[in-house]
Amino acid sequence: MPSVKINGYDIYFEVYGEGEPIVLLNGIMMSTSSWTSFIDVFSKNNKLVLIDFLDQGKSQKANEPYSQDLQADIVKGVIEELHLDKIHLVGVSYGGEVALKFALKYQNKLSSLIVANTTSYTTHLLKDVGKCWNYTAKNHDGRAFFKATMPFIYSVEFYEENIEWLKKREDMFVTIFDDEWYEAYVRLVDSAENLDIREEIKEIEVPTLIISSEYDITTPIRYQKIIHEKIKNSKWVLIKGSGHASMYEKPHEFSSSVLGFINTYNEEIKIV
Amino acid sequence: MPSVKINGYDIYFEVYGEGEPIVLLNGIMMSTSSWTSFIDVFSKNNKLVLIDFLDQGKSQKANEPYSQDLQADIVKGVIEELHLDKIHLVGVSYGGEVALKFALKYQNKLSSLIVANTTSYTTHLLKDVGKCWNYTAKNHDGRAFFKATMPFIYSVEFYEENIEWLKKREDMFVTIFDDEWYEAYVRLVDSAENLDIREEIKEIEVPTLIISSEYDITTPIRYQKIIHEKIKNSKWVLIKGSGHASMYEKPHEFSSSVLGFINTYNEEIKIV
Amino acid sequence: MPSVKINGYDIYFEVYGEGEPIVLLNGIMMSTSSWTSFIDVFSKNNKLVLIDFLDQGKSQKANEPYSQDLQADIVKGVIEELHLDKIHLVGVSYGGEVALKFALKYQNKLSSLIVANTTSYTTHLLKDVGKCWNYTAKNHDGRAFFKATMPFIYSVEFYEENIEWLKKREDMFVTIFDDEWYEAYVRLVDSAENLDIREEIKEIEVPTLIISSEYDITTPIRYQKIIHEKIKNSKWVLIKGSGHASMYEKPHEFSSSVLGFINTYNEEIKIV
Amino acid sequence: MPSVKINGYDIYFEVYGEGEPIVLLNGIMMSTSSWTSFIDVFSKNNKLVLIDFLDQGKSQKANEPYSQDLQADIVKGVIEELHLDKIHLVGVSYGGEVALKFALKYQNKLSSLIVANTTSYTTHLLKDVGKCWNYTAKNHDGRAFFKATMPFIYSVEFYEENIEWLKKREDMFVTIFDDEWYEAYVRLVDSAENLDIREEIKEIEVPTLIISSEYDITTPIRYQKIIHEKIKNSKWVLIKGSGHASMYEKPHEFSSSVLGFINTYNEEIKIV
Repeated sequence: MPSVKINGYDIYFEVYGEGEPIVLLNGIMMSTSSWTSFIDVFSKNNKLVLIDFLDQGKSQKANEPYSQDLQADIVKGVIEELHLDKIHLVGVSYGGEVALKFALKYQNKLSSLIVANTTSYTTHLLKDVGKCWNYTAKNHDGRAFFKATMPFIYSVEFYEENIEWLKKREDMFVTIFDDEWYEAYVRLVDSAENLDIREEIKEIEVPTLIISSEYDITTPIRYQKIIHEKIKNSKWVLIKGSGHASMYEKPHEFSSSVLGFINTYNEEIKIV
Repeated sequence: MPSVKINGYDIYFEVYGEGEPIVLLNGIMMSTSSWTSFIDVFSKNNKLVLIDFLDQGKSQKANEPYSQDLQADIVKGVIEELHLDKIHLVGVSYGGEVALKFALKYQNKLSSLIVANTTSYTTHLLKDVGKCWNYTAKNHDGRAFFKATMPFIYSVEFYEENIEWLKKREDMFVTIFDDEWYEAYVRLVDSAENLDIREEIKEIEVPTLIISSEYDITTPIRYQKIIHEKIKNSKWVLIKGSGHASMYEKPHEFSSSVLGFINTYNEEIKIV
Repeated sequence: MPSVKINGYDIYFEVYGEGEPIVLLNGIMMSTSSWTSFIDVFSKNNKLVLIDFLDQGKSQKANEPYSQDLQADIVKGVIEELHLDKIHLVGVSYGGEVALKFALKYQNKLSSLIVANTTSYTTHLLKDVGKCWNYTAKNHDGRAFFKATMPFIYSVEFYEENIEWLKKREDMFVTIFDDEWYEAYVRLVDSAENLDIREEIKEIEVPTLIISSEYDITTPIRYQKIIHEKIKNSKWVLIKGSGHASMYEKPHEFSSSVLGFINTYNEEIKIV
Repeated sequence: MPSVKINGYDIYFEVYGEGEPIVLLNGIMMSTSSWTSFIDVFSKNNKLVLIDFLDQGKSQKANEPYSQDLQADIVKGVIEELHLDKIHLVGVSYGGEVALKFALKYQNKLSSLIVANTTSYTTHLLKDVGKCWNYTAKNHDGRAFFKATMPFIYSVEFYEENIEWLKKREDMFVTIFDDEWYEAYVRLVDSAENLDIREEIKEIEVPTLIISSEYDITTPIRYQKIIHEKIKNSKWVLIKGSGHASMYEKPHEFSSSVLGFINTYNEEIKIV
């Protein structure tokens, strides 16, 4: 179980396969174990690195509040530990926000940047949503927490088709999430509260792919459009029929969009 | 202060103006007083009737659970009290659901039907959203309740532009809503939980207008499409840039869509 | 048959009803007779004025090229002839472009402005489309002209549902349109070729409604968004399921949107 | 210059690289030479096969009308000539229609199916568009042909940004396209006129990816939705900001979507 001490915290990571390295950054409720089904396909032609952010999974819990800048430094620490020169950095939701922050600080470490279901700005509405999530988290009430968060994660369509699976997930929430988990979750939400890099990101010049979902209500398409407009020459695809958690709802579309971009991007394809 | 006893409950209503009658049905968190700004324009050429549903505003609180069918009967009771033969029935959100139920039971009382930001089915996702609303309501915590509900009412855009006004609303929530209000609110949410009239509504044959909002995440456009497909010859317009509460976010677009339909609908305009 | 000489041309117009005056401006292939089905509903509470633009219907044919500014002056001439102080000006497509031009020149004559399926800029693509229209028009080939123009007028859905009606229209084109008509049509298309008032329209301050159609490929929604963004406080509704010719495809939605706005707009409805 | 005689016609094809074979099928105005910029990226890990359909590029011209079934048989002939057991079949627009036909006849030859900007039904509107294209083609007038066809190929946005390049393309049309080319083009358009396999395609069971473009007016997204609904478990992504010719307008998004699907699709990625 590899881990490395970064900024005083033990950070857990996993490495699979060989090839141009891909670093996958988790969404806020996820951990390295969320990617189990994806390991084979992502490590087939690439070295795959999974990381638990501070306050996630097997990484250490924080002892004070922090911002997403610290998480970006944690990613930096892991790739230094692994002596990786350049990486393809892929982030979903919270992980995409950290990926944008990373690109602003350490752009020369990037071969490419892929941000799925991500925003460059925590809107006032999203702040209130986060506060509702934290309200239920602070109450350590798994069922309330589930009902506060899941409608922002999955689409109506996914809910309709997978209601039994969701009910089992709810039961699991109640069992698994303990006080420490909820406290860490609250800190993670708070670390994203003041994100606003709408202007700064225009400095990102590495090949960038934006992945949106048709039914994403948490990081709406029109806010992902801002990322597309600011990052010159960024590419943009949308996964039809998916909510915010595109990697869960549409794993094939998600993984083929990401890997297709990483392994076939070629500056020289020019038509005009 | 007119009221009438219906099914054992005192139901409050208000009447303004003269002309073909319009009955406006409230959304779940609204009451007759929510329509103050609209009274002039809606009663200019029409008799306008406002009603507080059971468990809303100045109407009586319920002493047991009920379904939206009871609310439809309450509307029926008010129009009988007023000796109205035919009405134009306009419902927003919860009120639109009651309007659909009313149309199924008492279609011969309708000159036309207008449903804004309404669904004919409470999806599994929406049920969970309702349970989150009720969780904060049962805790009688105004700030948590505000943060649980408002992101489903207003668009991101409205939030960005009116954050100071929203903060004042939040302060007001804390002051005004008392235990009795919250308990009534919980019953109202529960009364909508099992709504599923997706098939039945194909029997509605009166002139019908569906009003959707571009950014409505609570009753998504694709679920309003079901209403349009089932109700033969229903008309359908969408208000650009608005969230779920179109009457608040875009009052001119809302009122001109409603009144334009009511006062100018003419079977004989046929092009093809 | 009333007509008036404006800028040396005989201009035909029709007047119906009494009330606040509404002036309806035609799309490029239309004429006063296109509005026959709408006269009753539009003149019920208003004085309705229909106008054939220069090179349309019963108005005179032009003897040289002109721009849409001349058409705006023609509208001015008609309202002077009728001694109208203030008008509600409604334009569809080409007529909406003229309405925007009119607003820029004679804003003090407007009570309100309604532009349906209109652009403030003739894009390079639309210029090429216009040249294709004119190519078939110059060949005086009714069937080719029909096939070049109708796919830009009606939606795929309307086409599917009304193919027999459309085939009869095609037969009619062949019979009715003569050389003089086609030559006038070419001049009308050319008069719109250089339209670009994307910036100027920010000076429009009268109450303005923008009506878009979901499937409009000729004046795409994203170009109508420019009008909305530039004209401060403009209102914006969209007719679901319609192509460019919303007045033909969805006459009830079109007329109720227009008349609802004209007859119920009220500055004082303010929520926030 | 490899070619093979199929159904009596000389059919031209090109082969590049090694790996699981990909066969790319052209849009109606394209030929093998349209893919020049894509050869490197598509043949990096795969054997790439390009084909000129009958009446395209260096393949023979037809001596009588035909349907797209013949083109599907031509694809079959080429893969037999190359002794390919299973192929990944990729078709754009017309080529996607042939790919669907191929899948219905020879499904056991497919490892996967990718259809970009494709319809399973030639709508009445699209038939009229095709007749307008053919009208200008039969007149052998390159400039009219350009203006009749390009607005259905490229988005408004692409037109705005690349107008000088488009003007050069127009000049090229006038020079290059000869009578024989136009006659072949007319036959190609006619071969698609009666396509309607909306129901049949529900029999397709191979892994299928549908690629749509946000601004595609020729094969609208809502008609590609039919393909998605009929082909069980088909995957669906949309390229933002592109018109019908996604491979030209957004070559990186197009190629990474296609290659990501072909090279990473894995039945075993299952979340729920």
